[in-house]
Amino acid sequence: VKHINWDPISAEKQGYKHFMLKEIFEQPARIVDTLRGRILLDRADVDLSEVELDAEWLAQVQKLTLIACGTSYYAALVGKYMIESIARVPVEVDLASEFRYRTPIVTENTLCVAISQSGETADTLAAMKLARGLGAKGLAICNVIESTMARETDGVLYTHAGPEIGVASTKAFTTQLAALGLLAVWLGRRRGTLDAEQAAVHLDALRTVPTAMEEILTDLEPYAEIAREFGQAHSFLYLGRGILYPIALEGALKLKEISYIHAEGYAAGEMKHGPIALIDEEMPVVVLAPRNGVYDKTLSNLEEVKAREGKIIAIGADDDNELRRLADIFIPMPEVAEVIQPLVASVAVQLIAYYIADFKGTDVDQPRNLAKSVTVE
Amino acid sequence: VKHINWDPISAEKQGYKHFMLKEIFEQPARIVDTLRGRILLDRADVDLSEVELDAEWLAQVQKLTLIACGTSYYAALVGKYMIESIARVPVEVDLASEFRYRTPIVTENTLCVAISQSGETADTLAAMKLARGLGAKGLAICNVIESTMARETDGVLYTHAGPEIGVASTKAFTTQLAALGLLAVWLGRRRGTLDAEQAAVHLDALRTVPTAMEEILTDLEPYAEIAREFGQAHSFLYLGRGILYPIALEGALKLKEISYIHAEGYAAGEMKHGPIALIDEEMPVVVLAPRNGVYDKTLSNLEEVKAREGKIIAIGADDDNELRRLADIFIPMPEVAEVIQPLVASVAVQLIAYYIADFKGTDVDQPRNLAKSVTVE
Repeated sequence: VKHINWDPISAEKQGYKHFMLKEIFEQPARIVDTLRGRILLDRADVDLSEVELDAEWLAQVQKLTLIACGTSYYAALVGKYMIESIARVPVEVDLASEFRYRTPIVTENTLCVAISQSGETADTLAAMKLARGLGAKGLAICNVIESTMARETDGVLYTHAGPEIGVASTKAFTTQLAALGLLAVWLGRRRGTLDAEQAAVHLDALRTVPTAMEEILTDLEPYAEIAREFGQAHSFLYLGRGILYPIALEGALKLKEISYIHAEGYAAGEMKHGPIALIDEEMPVVVLAPRNGVYDKTLSNLEEVKAREGKIIAIGADDDNELRRLADIFIPMPEVAEVIQPLVASVAVQLIAYYIADFKGTDVDQPRNLAKSVTVE
Repeated sequence: VKHINWDPISAEKQGYKHFMLKEIFEQPARIVDTLRGRILLDRADVDLSEVELDAEWLAQVQKLTLIACGTSYYAALVGKYMIESIARVPVEVDLASEFRYRTPIVTENTLCVAISQSGETADTLAAMKLARGLGAKGLAICNVIESTMARETDGVLYTHAGPEIGVASTKAFTTQLAALGLLAVWLGRRRGTLDAEQAAVHLDALRTVPTAMEEILTDLEPYAEIAREFGQAHSFLYLGRGILYPIALEGALKLKEISYIHAEGYAAGEMKHGPIALIDEEMPVVVLAPRNGVYDKTLSNLEEVKAREGKIIAIGADDDNELRRLADIFIPMPEVAEVIQPLVASVAVQLIAYYIADFKGTDVDQPRNLAKSVTVE
């Protein structure tokens, strides 16, 4: 017997032009679903008893290996930042299609975290199987109950994104980020590397995500302008640093997937080592620059883009007049803690891709050549 | 007193149209220089006594962290494959500009290997300093004697590329790869993870690099054809798997740097997770597909590109008729051991970029916006 936990009626567009747009707007509610019942405010802790991994074993785990493909891989890159900074345990991230064909170094003190919306991604399943065969314990982060990945592992942490119809992942991605944030706090508390006070700060930050997402969803004017101004561009660059570098990669992937524009994400600090040669007035650059620990460095990279007459689309704090001055189009985002900036900024890069694709008239929900779940190698 | 170990006259073009082309053709000789005196055939070992790192300490090192920027970062990614497979010690690779602004997890049993042609790259110097401050030992792989990096570390492994004038790195990159191959064997022998027989196989492979490079340099016709056919393209994709995935990244970077064409490198297994949406008859795809452990998988990714009418430039074995059939333009490369395929294939991707840039008439040796050494942050 297969248990279906979603009502078919919920898969309708509910007045939105595309499923992808509906799913973008759904994110605040789905983050609430993913956090629900898992934050223990009184103990400044996370309840992941559902995961069923042994707490004693976890307390002495030596390494996490996060494995995924595509958008989930970018969630894993954010996860590395979250887990290393919050729980202070080393995290390695690998593409499933790369990991499974090397002879990876995995010990019995490794937790292999496999991330996949569908829980059916062939390369990720094979990579997890390989790691477990070498002695690692496996934790799946997936969205589909009773998926192969959920069955063939030691523990499961479900995202509660609900059914995702658009081929380009949106709410599955941000709920993965929320799940990884919970995992980071949980690990930190179990390993004694995170005290109650710091844990409370991170948990409070996670709880502000839905509100911050709602706020960024209220102003759609910048995206319409981006589509009008840059919808015909051949190429885009996306830049970010630190915990927002993976969101630059994800933003570029979204644009590739649904608008067929060649977009590439880059760590902003790498600009000078090559991609800056591409910059001219034809090449829009999307930069993720809310105030955080690397804000000044990002801004100085942006000055270089400006000096080469690059067109700048900047995502940053509403009251950041310096950033506004540099930007051709400015997307204000609410000021939030660094650890949740990836979740909030994701909404902006999703909307950039959506508006450009809709402007171009592509098949947003079923882009050419792509499948929702890649169940072949 | 500063010791200058290069004769100024050697920095002339010697009849080549550009320094970059001269430096591409110089590579077999510079690989010989980098290997010279370091391979101990009778003991199937490597002599890196010059490095002056304590052998006992190295035998129990728990992790290597390879840190670099730009092209050197792609050398580090190849280094991870070489060192993990040959010496069986875990290797983490990080962009210097990312590493230095997180709070990285570094222990006293970590060897931090910083890679930089000039030895003056600001982010890499800062990252190395941070790692050493946290207790790691530092090993510099650099090309310039008495550079800051060579002075401010525990050990130095020099590449012997000679002065590199072209801003886009070529011989500095392949000599870095040779140095990393030597380091892998040296570590494997010291740690007891590599027996004499296996070591001899790898060392023999390294010794065949110059001859294999000479061979690929004899046939320039494919590159002229690529420039004629695809010199006007807006975008390129470069695909590779395993030890050749970083060469896909490096090939794309070369094209970006000197031809100003937006080229992106991708792990071939990730194609289906997004970039395949970009593929049409306008988008040339360069694929690195010599026979090795992931050849079949790469070929099946290529079939998908072909099915979407993508134009294919394939680099592979001379007698590979299946690959020839799929390719619009075929670049034969000599059959060599997997571990040295990155060095040989590098020559092909360098020539692709060079011929396209020369066709377009860009300033090959001094591309716009780029500096030879990035000595600012």
